[in-house]
Amino acid sequence: MPLSEFALIQRFFTKQSIVNSSTRVGIGDDCALLSIPDGYELAITTDTMVENVHFFQGADPRQLGHKLLAVNLSDLAGMGAKPLSVTLALTVPRVDEAWLSAFATGFLTLAERYGVDLIGGDTTAGALTLTVQALGLVPRGQALTRSAAQVGDFIYLSGNIGDAGLGLKIIQGYPCTDPDNALKQFNQPEPACDIGQKLCGVANACIDISDGLSSDLGHILQQSHVGACLFWDELPLSTAVLTYISDTGDWLLPLVAGDDYQLCFTVRPEKAAQVPDSCQKIGIIEAERGLRLNKAGITQLLETKGYEHFS
Amino acid sequence: MPLSEFALIQRFFTKQSIVNSSTRVGIGDDCALLSIPDGYELAITTDTMVENVHFFQGADPRQLGHKLLAVNLSDLAGMGAKPLSVTLALTVPRVDEAWLSAFATGFLTLAERYGVDLIGGDTTAGALTLTVQALGLVPRGQALTRSAAQVGDFIYLSGNIGDAGLGLKIIQGYPCTDPDNALKQFNQPEPACDIGQKLCGVANACIDISDGLSSDLGHILQQSHVGACLFWDELPLSTAVLTYISDTGDWLLPLVAGDDYQLCFTVRPEKAAQVPDSCQKIGIIEAERGLRLNKAGITQLLETKGYEHFS
Repeated sequence: MPLSEFALIQRFFTKQSIVNSSTRVGIGDDCALLSIPDGYELAITTDTMVENVHFFQGADPRQLGHKLLAVNLSDLAGMGAKPLSVTLALTVPRVDEAWLSAFATGFLTLAERYGVDLIGGDTTAGALTLTVQALGLVPRGQALTRSAAQVGDFIYLSGNIGDAGLGLKIIQGYPCTDPDNALKQFNQPEPACDIGQKLCGVANACIDISDGLSSDLGHILQQSHVGACLFWDELPLSTAVLTYISDTGDWLLPLVAGDDYQLCFTVRPEKAAQVPDSCQKIGIIEAERGLRLNKAGITQLLETKGYEHFS
Repeated sequence: MPLSEFALIQRFFTKQSIVNSSTRVGIGDDCALLSIPDGYELAITTDTMVENVHFFQGADPRQLGHKLLAVNLSDLAGMGAKPLSVTLALTVPRVDEAWLSAFATGFLTLAERYGVDLIGGDTTAGALTLTVQALGLVPRGQALTRSAAQVGDFIYLSGNIGDAGLGLKIIQGYPCTDPDNALKQFNQPEPACDIGQKLCGVANACIDISDGLSSDLGHILQQSHVGACLFWDELPLSTAVLTYISDTGDWLLPLVAGDDYQLCFTVRPEKAAQVPDSCQKIGIIEAERGLRLNKAGITQLLETKGYEHFS
């Protein structure tokens, strides 16, 4: 690698000044150092994106930088944690300065928006592989886990689902007349960090939907030892997704397509008034195991196996 | 990838029970959760190892699992931090169960020895790329940075240098009559965690030597705005390394070869008695910039450019 790791990190990733008050030492020593305020726990997550697996070769590097950070912040949101700082492990086949500059811009612009410091990293030569580890703070004992859903809880979504899946269909050739939002959701998802933090003390279980609603809600059901019923008519779907379903008959898309990065969470009915207005109630937690869908008045077991899935 | 990420992680990486009292939630939710005790700061580091860059294709997977964790624990040691927990981002070209099992054994055996929990991870398909992020605790304000060396400090090493470099030479064909220790240092280095923690309150500056003594001590000199002189006769060298130098004339090897994972640190003379006995004094911090070596009574500027280097 012609440009040393240090120089590479220096040039593209240390433009950002320290913005988070927890950061005591950032990039440039054996480790970064963080102060953790009393009364909080630390939430930690890591996600990797690999070329040709999680994104297409030739993907816009600025969007990629944004998305890599967004998917990690979304995991923090799923625990109700406030983003604090991240490290970046960047494996690149060559030093392409234009690519790196755009990637860093996408990454750091989103980081700055959420007050997140890039506190460390490693840059290596190899097949394009991008790993972030993100750290966040959550008030002690208030983290939103997957295992806390209770029978009778209402199930909510933080926003529309299916748009990212539609974005992928558009890239694959589906002729959408209004593609902008769907492509944005696929390429530059917005993590639901603010809603996640508001759910501490309100929601029981919570998960971020990265693999599709049925799969991720399935994790809540499995880890909470409960079942659920969803109501098709309540699902928050954009006009573009409704048009796609009407065109193709593929109504499973919003239930199984990944990359939505909304939160799915459960709330006791008596706390329903505390749920942010932008969220949508879509179903109920039941004692009977399994995930069911009530569609056109008929309740059916949701069978999503065999649906083609990106990554 | 035929075996899902979850199943893969489940099978090979969750054998380990939670051993660290800070771990509140481990693998299996959107994030792990850690309690940070009052009076401590969190140290964070990340390191990636890429096939054919940081290790040879066909490298023993058990040794690789060990080394990947060791290099990250060594960075914690370089700050004086006690290891707490790690996440693992594992990108593998295919699910090779024998490989994964051996890799996990090497990784988790070392983790258990240091009381480190594997608290999260991501498993993806792609070229073999291994990233760990490690978290550690250090008493507030006592972390050992690179920037705290002072003129007059003694310079120490935590142990022998050059053996890992000799290990690489052996792999490349050098006929060593006693290769076992050198190969072990190269393939399965031991992080100096215990010494690192003992240096809090004793050492001024500290760094872990992963890129070679002259390069890493160079970081201390640069960030502390000082210079140094080393004494060749004081360098802790094994008989095998001394024999190699005698055979080849390549006396730069212990100064520039990487992968030693010892600590290099500076201490005020009045605190020298508090340095652990196993450490060796090798030089002194001076006001005059640059890194000098006193060898056979002659002090020369240490010129290490152009030396062939692994990774």
